[in-house]
Amino acid sequence: MKAFQYRKFEDRAQVVEVPVPSPGPGQVLLRITAAGVCHSDLHILSSSQDDYRYGPLPLTLGHEAAGVVTAHGAGAGFYPLGTAVLVYGPWGCGMCRNCSAGEENYCTDPGGVKPPGIAVDGAIAEYLVVDNERHLIPLGDLDPVQAVALTDAGLTSYHAIKRAVSRLGAGTFAVVIGAGGLGHLAIQIIRALGASTVIAVDVAEDKLQLARHVGADHAILGDGQSAGLINRLTNGAGADAIFDFVGSEQTVTLAGDIAATYAQITIVGVGQGALPVGYRRLPFETNVRSVFWGTRSDLWEVIDLARSGRLTVSVEIHSLEDASQAYERLARGEVLGRAVIVPGHNTDGP
Amino acid sequence: MKAFQYRKFEDRAQVVEVPVPSPGPGQVLLRITAAGVCHSDLHILSSSQDDYRYGPLPLTLGHEAAGVVTAHGAGAGFYPLGTAVLVYGPWGCGMCRNCSAGEENYCTDPGGVKPPGIAVDGAIAEYLVVDNERHLIPLGDLDPVQAVALTDAGLTSYHAIKRAVSRLGAGTFAVVIGAGGLGHLAIQIIRALGASTVIAVDVAEDKLQLARHVGADHAILGDGQSAGLINRLTNGAGADAIFDFVGSEQTVTLAGDIAATYAQITIVGVGQGALPVGYRRLPFETNVRSVFWGTRSDLWEVIDLARSGRLTVSVEIHSLEDASQAYERLARGEVLGRAVIVPGHNTDGP
Amino acid sequence: MKAFQYRKFEDRAQVVEVPVPSPGPGQVLLRITAAGVCHSDLHILSSSQDDYRYGPLPLTLGHEAAGVVTAHGAGAGFYPLGTAVLVYGPWGCGMCRNCSAGEENYCTDPGGVKPPGIAVDGAIAEYLVVDNERHLIPLGDLDPVQAVALTDAGLTSYHAIKRAVSRLGAGTFAVVIGAGGLGHLAIQIIRALGASTVIAVDVAEDKLQLARHVGADHAILGDGQSAGLINRLTNGAGADAIFDFVGSEQTVTLAGDIAATYAQITIVGVGQGALPVGYRRLPFETNVRSVFWGTRSDLWEVIDLARSGRLTVSVEIHSLEDASQAYERLARGEVLGRAVIVPGHNTDGP
Amino acid sequence: MKAFQYRKFEDRAQVVEVPVPSPGPGQVLLRITAAGVCHSDLHILSSSQDDYRYGPLPLTLGHEAAGVVTAHGAGAGFYPLGTAVLVYGPWGCGMCRNCSAGEENYCTDPGGVKPPGIAVDGAIAEYLVVDNERHLIPLGDLDPVQAVALTDAGLTSYHAIKRAVSRLGAGTFAVVIGAGGLGHLAIQIIRALGASTVIAVDVAEDKLQLARHVGADHAILGDGQSAGLINRLTNGAGADAIFDFVGSEQTVTLAGDIAATYAQITIVGVGQGALPVGYRRLPFETNVRSVFWGTRSDLWEVIDLARSGRLTVSVEIHSLEDASQAYERLARGEVLGRAVIVPGHNTDGP
Repeated sequence: MKAFQYRKFEDRAQVVEVPVPSPGPGQVLLRITAAGVCHSDLHILSSSQDDYRYGPLPLTLGHEAAGVVTAHGAGAGFYPLGTAVLVYGPWGCGMCRNCSAGEENYCTDPGGVKPPGIAVDGAIAEYLVVDNERHLIPLGDLDPVQAVALTDAGLTSYHAIKRAVSRLGAGTFAVVIGAGGLGHLAIQIIRALGASTVIAVDVAEDKLQLARHVGADHAILGDGQSAGLINRLTNGAGADAIFDFVGSEQTVTLAGDIAATYAQITIVGVGQGALPVGYRRLPFETNVRSVFWGTRSDLWEVIDLARSGRLTVSVEIHSLEDASQAYERLARGEVLGRAVIVPGHNTDGP
Repeated sequence: MKAFQYRKFEDRAQVVEVPVPSPGPGQVLLRITAAGVCHSDLHILSSSQDDYRYGPLPLTLGHEAAGVVTAHGAGAGFYPLGTAVLVYGPWGCGMCRNCSAGEENYCTDPGGVKPPGIAVDGAIAEYLVVDNERHLIPLGDLDPVQAVALTDAGLTSYHAIKRAVSRLGAGTFAVVIGAGGLGHLAIQIIRALGASTVIAVDVAEDKLQLARHVGADHAILGDGQSAGLINRLTNGAGADAIFDFVGSEQTVTLAGDIAATYAQITIVGVGQGALPVGYRRLPFETNVRSVFWGTRSDLWEVIDLARSGRLTVSVEIHSLEDASQAYERLARGEVLGRAVIVPGHNTDGP
Repeated sequence: MKAFQYRKFEDRAQVVEVPVPSPGPGQVLLRITAAGVCHSDLHILSSSQDDYRYGPLPLTLGHEAAGVVTAHGAGAGFYPLGTAVLVYGPWGCGMCRNCSAGEENYCTDPGGVKPPGIAVDGAIAEYLVVDNERHLIPLGDLDPVQAVALTDAGLTSYHAIKRAVSRLGAGTFAVVIGAGGLGHLAIQIIRALGASTVIAVDVAEDKLQLARHVGADHAILGDGQSAGLINRLTNGAGADAIFDFVGSEQTVTLAGDIAATYAQITIVGVGQGALPVGYRRLPFETNVRSVFWGTRSDLWEVIDLARSGRLTVSVEIHSLEDASQAYERLARGEVLGRAVIVPGHNTDGP
Repeated sequence: MKAFQYRKFEDRAQVVEVPVPSPGPGQVLLRITAAGVCHSDLHILSSSQDDYRYGPLPLTLGHEAAGVVTAHGAGAGFYPLGTAVLVYGPWGCGMCRNCSAGEENYCTDPGGVKPPGIAVDGAIAEYLVVDNERHLIPLGDLDPVQAVALTDAGLTSYHAIKRAVSRLGAGTFAVVIGAGGLGHLAIQIIRALGASTVIAVDVAEDKLQLARHVGADHAILGDGQSAGLINRLTNGAGADAIFDFVGSEQTVTLAGDIAATYAQITIVGVGQGALPVGYRRLPFETNVRSVFWGTRSDLWEVIDLARSGRLTVSVEIHSLEDASQAYERLARGEVLGRAVIVPGHNTDGP
């Protein structure tokens, strides 16, 4: 089968021909119908041997997966062959205290979370082995191409927002910093889950347009004026919930500058920024934290949200052969919403 | 001044001329700009001496009030003369443990809550004395006629819904039984505060139309088929949040029949129904409770919701002189949304 | 091996010799070190063919299990041979939305929850097959005999209490109705998790003594005076959290009579009682619900509570051969705390 | 009357003779029975004219007050003359959104919170004017000397802990940094409200002894070894709730070093430290915030906690004439628990 692999450190990833894998006991084999292209992959694709902690290459990329159950390992079979599914990505041990609550994203096993496309072979390929059927959720009548980004871009946004939902009540203001693959879903999720007036901030005008299109009440350029403008929009009180999908020094500083009493600041982006918290540094009771991906329950919920029509992913489609180009577009900031790899997709037009 | 008073038990209320009252220490006098007409008043208007526990008549009706600050008692003055305000209605002692949290609706003073229009003279008049400035909230740029029903129809609905907000998440179903003065606001509040698919139930087709108009995803006739239909709409799982604005034996039974595991059933209506809860009588963890009005914080929030454009009251306007007719229309089920008394309103108009 | 089986409807259960079972793929075989004797088993042991919905007899009883991993089925092996474990009992499908959150006690699979000792062969035997390793939690240095009742008597109490923890704050009163196997643990769990003054109610003086011994601030006889006495103990305000481990008409009525505004009444006992909830039937915001067993997370937590020394099970020990006598003592109300079957236990004493 | 006043910037405060004040409309006059001596007063007592933002001196110190109602201003009278009360200290406007919920500590009035002893004359005197009866809570049968510190040392600790109570469940670890006036109450409050194993950290051995005496499971010296030791005590997982009553660079750094996933770090102390929060800087979902004093509800609750016997203040008593010495002892770290001024106390006695 074809797979998009990072084969040699500090070399370009490429589409190669590899054997179709076989599912072991309890595992299932999926034929991939869609796989998402994520910003965090760019870190892997530029990592040196010292950076990458999961053992030897090659690694097939792709941690957002939709597919169809194609083979069962011994003991598997809850989902019949042919079932269309989405894949929960942060694979934990399934046994520890956090995994017992479905919070596999915070698995306490010494080996930690082992996502496909990061720790083991991933979804940008024709087939994917999923380690356990519990990591599947039925797709139902959703379109895999539209839905695949729910498993990370959607799930991560949803998790961050759900944990702050007490700050999304009547009369509140929510700020989304970064209106990309995650941010454009976050805007919709905030609108669905709460009553906040939503303010989106980005440095690119096309992303601000997307933000308005998906429901932001205000969409403003991120520059030296942002904090002042947001404080005016909130009548001087500041924002109650702030989601930073960038995480740079500049954006976390902005988050601190616009926080209200009781605000929740959630840092999702992997930028290197840090916001100092101390007595009277921020308004009292402003909480600051960072988060990672989401729980198994969260994924059920975010899929339900899409099914109810209240969440739509903006998608651009690429064939498996064009995976490299998709990552290049992403690196250059050219992707609006989410880029999705569809094996067998014919890019040569109608 | 003119006031609409219940003067003699089991006799009709009427508009009479009485002296303009004077505010005592800490009190304020409002010139009324709008007063709401509420279903619960019909109980007072038909009560005998034995039913009515608040002392001798006459009683000026009206517990939903909007007005303008016109005079200050000694020590009052936080809100300047001329300030347009809404009135928080469930006046508690302000001192007890519940009042300390703004939960004056559950004041533990032996005398209990003393709302205007119920325990003391109310708002269907040209002027109203408010017992303490803390019971005022600035109206800002809201229209008093549009906003006055927020203080009870809005506040009661909002309180009931906010206390169930954990059941309004992604993928949930909420059912509103009774799409009248409270119910048509409840539908909007659920849509604003949560992601639930909203199902409205009523016995009148015009109210179902109003329900759809204000955002119900489904609006169905309340009859022997309702439970089956709702269970189908919820894919067999049942509803997660059920708000019963009727409270009759029939409606609380319906609520029990459509509840999901973990559901919250909230009985708001003053009907005589009761739903038996016991082991395996309802799905596990289905909670049942009844509620009364709302807290001071809730009123700030519901006003913010209206100000943000996410909550609109459907209103029909009557002059003070026509107060009796307004109650008659309400009693006959002819009011869509909320009837509002506007002193000085010219009903003869073009 | 020896197993205590219900073999023929409406006939006595007995200890019989059966083959040691083999674990299938993903399963594990435990050598039983302790098994709890539960009141709910008495319902099975007296059930007719029509009552028992889980298919043909025989059935080995026992849904509280502690043991040692003795064999792995294919694909199993997370816990090495020799690991001492407790067994999470409400076995769900592991895949559905509720199971994804570890809430297997409310599994939505059409087949429902399939606990050992109820739906499949249970723990009152020398060996037990556990359907999946995720249902095991390491026992660590806890004594299996002391700990085994944590898996149902402890877990069920803990779950009921944790879901009401918001009503256990400073200045609150909690009432435990029934100070038996579950109730004597509930008293300790309330004391550990909250600040409530705890009032225990029972009809047997020896159980009231046990209640006081494990931390009840008050222990009172359940009779016609209970409601009045509790209302005095709570200074007229009523109780904030009420846990009814009996669930009879009499006890749920008591629960209603002593509830405070905002109270949580939780019906745990399988008695046939039902408490009607409607407008002004109970204090406002008093919630009523019933619950079943607990979640996987809850079991981790209740075990931690025992490990920290804040929860101790009162135990009486029986050999496997004496299982019938243990149930007889339980049926006669003679067991203080929990009866535990220990295979190989020598009852002839020193 | 005698009053302990800061009269001239950068000069020593002293006991002076001033007129007994008169209560205005809505106000009450208290005869002081006890007044607490707080670390935060040391900041006022060393402040220059530029530091002190509340207008001209002199200022009577003391923001922890217990007294007896001695005179009513016009319109006051809810609490009869002779009622023994405690005083809620963070006096807000009583009207704004936060004050409506009793959260006067976060009053949004432009003038902000105006506590006695900080913004207006305070309690270290023979009499105190309280601005509004709503700031009183009946003392009941509590001893004012034992109870007065509940109004700040108790209330501030209680508020910080209550907002983190979700992290105090079964199996959790809580760390209290600083076992002084607030910390020794915090230890007891955590024990009362939750199931956490409590670890106290201080630099003084006598305070560690007090910490153990009031219920800390572990009490350890704050030095370079603390983080390692706490991580061992928590079995490598870290602490779930951390309360820093110092707030220095060193202590907030310690807080960050010992936090578990999902931890709540609450900075209460007014030290100048700040803890940087960013992606992977702390364990995921570790929240960091700072807090200020508490709400009106919180004070009712912390008083209830004392009344139930689960909270005891360690007190040393000084006469009003000895107020200066009390502050000197506090500044030198010699006070164990709380120093309390009792007007008329005879310090020469046996």
